[in-house]
Amino acid sequence: MKAVRIHNYGDASTLSYEDAPMPSISSNNDVLIRVIAASVNPVDWKIREGLLAQMIPYSLPLTLGWDVSGVIEAVGSTFSKFKVGDAVYSRPDIKRNGTYAEYVVIHEDEVAHKPKTISHIEAAALPLAGITAWEAMFTTAQLKAGQSVLIHAGSGGVGCLAVQLAKSQGAYVIATTSGKNRAFVESLGADQVIDYRSQRFEDVISDVDVVFDTMGGDVQESSWSVLKPGGILVSIISPPSTEKAAALSVRSAFVFIEPNAKILEELAELVDVGKLRPIIGAEFALQDIAKAHALSETGHTVGKIVLYVGLP
Amino acid sequence: MKAVRIHNYGDASTLSYEDAPMPSISSNNDVLIRVIAASVNPVDWKIREGLLAQMIPYSLPLTLGWDVSGVIEAVGSTFSKFKVGDAVYSRPDIKRNGTYAEYVVIHEDEVAHKPKTISHIEAAALPLAGITAWEAMFTTAQLKAGQSVLIHAGSGGVGCLAVQLAKSQGAYVIATTSGKNRAFVESLGADQVIDYRSQRFEDVISDVDVVFDTMGGDVQESSWSVLKPGGILVSIISPPSTEKAAALSVRSAFVFIEPNAKILEELAELVDVGKLRPIIGAEFALQDIAKAHALSETGHTVGKIVLYVGLP
Repeated sequence: MKAVRIHNYGDASTLSYEDAPMPSISSNNDVLIRVIAASVNPVDWKIREGLLAQMIPYSLPLTLGWDVSGVIEAVGSTFSKFKVGDAVYSRPDIKRNGTYAEYVVIHEDEVAHKPKTISHIEAAALPLAGITAWEAMFTTAQLKAGQSVLIHAGSGGVGCLAVQLAKSQGAYVIATTSGKNRAFVESLGADQVIDYRSQRFEDVISDVDVVFDTMGGDVQESSWSVLKPGGILVSIISPPSTEKAAALSVRSAFVFIEPNAKILEELAELVDVGKLRPIIGAEFALQDIAKAHALSETGHTVGKIVLYVGLP
Repeated sequence: MKAVRIHNYGDASTLSYEDAPMPSISSNNDVLIRVIAASVNPVDWKIREGLLAQMIPYSLPLTLGWDVSGVIEAVGSTFSKFKVGDAVYSRPDIKRNGTYAEYVVIHEDEVAHKPKTISHIEAAALPLAGITAWEAMFTTAQLKAGQSVLIHAGSGGVGCLAVQLAKSQGAYVIATTSGKNRAFVESLGADQVIDYRSQRFEDVISDVDVVFDTMGGDVQESSWSVLKPGGILVSIISPPSTEKAAALSVRSAFVFIEPNAKILEELAELVDVGKLRPIIGAEFALQDIAKAHALSETGHTVGKIVLYVGLP
């Protein structure tokens, strides 16, 4: 089968669209998925660069990509919750070979039925970003109706979904973005949009219940001051200082994203009742993966970058 | 290039996935589009059956399909409003070869920039059905905020969009559907959903401003009685009786759909601000077109059937 693999860590030129062995089911709980679409996440090029090599001892060559929508081709057990032909989507374990490939094997606990009312292309844009937003805001920060949340980069891959999810929960949603995306982020449901190019968010808002940090660095540092006492700063980029949190009588958390089929089921339902929509910023064929990574690395894409891999 | 053509009129077995000549730009106003996605409409299999052959003297072989999303490959004039590489979508003239093909030539007045926030796959689901709903309800029936509209088959390819469009206009939306799709049609914005399997709509509602008939036959006949005086019955299936309309002091209209880039621009904007979403009911590769037609002919698909044709 065709796959995009790396044989060594490095820049986008290490991405090789090539023949790779067909993956095989290695346990009762595995399913083989024929990939129709995948999507690009920052973790893809971080792994490509070798930034996670200390944490996860990958054996190269490695197939990148950890978002998929496709069709069940084989199941590891007759007791599987899936049957051949089911349309499914997943954010699989990043410790295994990924989804930039015509076929991928995934533990079935990481797989869910895809939303019914969108294509595989849109469905592939949801899993990783959607689970990330859900885990950060709901599981970790326990965001509730009536609370306020500041979402950094509201037009980004995770931010687009976070704004919609927070809104669907009944929260008061404040989002930062660059001015040209203001109307778009409002259209996703943001109650207040802050143009980070013309305003410092910490000058404009205060007493926020939850800050969702998708940027890290200075943005994270400046976020402390807008929290109300007892509020929480939750980051998906780098662990916020626990000393700082204690000194300010606020809470902080770092969320490391794991596969979660339960959340995928919730996301699919929200999509099918019209409360959540994936936002597609750019589309590429799998073989144009180097262009897709280059675009992702600019950090300026609205929504998600999707990859066409196979036919439905 | 590859295309799906018919060499004679008939059933789905006449559909031939085959090599066809590359279409060429024949005027200043033509553009050549590389097709990424197409979608299936009832008109496709009506033309395949030869039902329109009296009206339109097609020369066979004919490439079917009149919905497309893709990329501008060439323009007929340097004064074109498009440039090579633009992502566009269209419902082209049904008198020319269609979009079940890797390339199609279309008059640029029938083409618009595709919505930015959805994939080509979803974009291909919009043009024909969206223009149809818009022309019937807005251009023809002049549906206004506060008026009521009965939309037949609210979960169908046209109905799904009609419900959302009517709602976005501020109308009171009543839709018929079969019971299992009730929650879905409500989620599209319908204020009242009538299960046509358990209730006769004419027993439940009356004094409606607009009826949008997407079914014809008995459904159209029974629709007269629910109109308020001065109300309008607009059909896309068959011309309602003008005598009947006059006798009842109501109005009637039959809408024959023409390409309309202006409406496509409006639809794209509604999509990008989150007020309209294409509903995908099934996905096929172009070469599986016979299966796609068979499904379309059942008349029971929720939303639209889309075809994957090329890579982005």
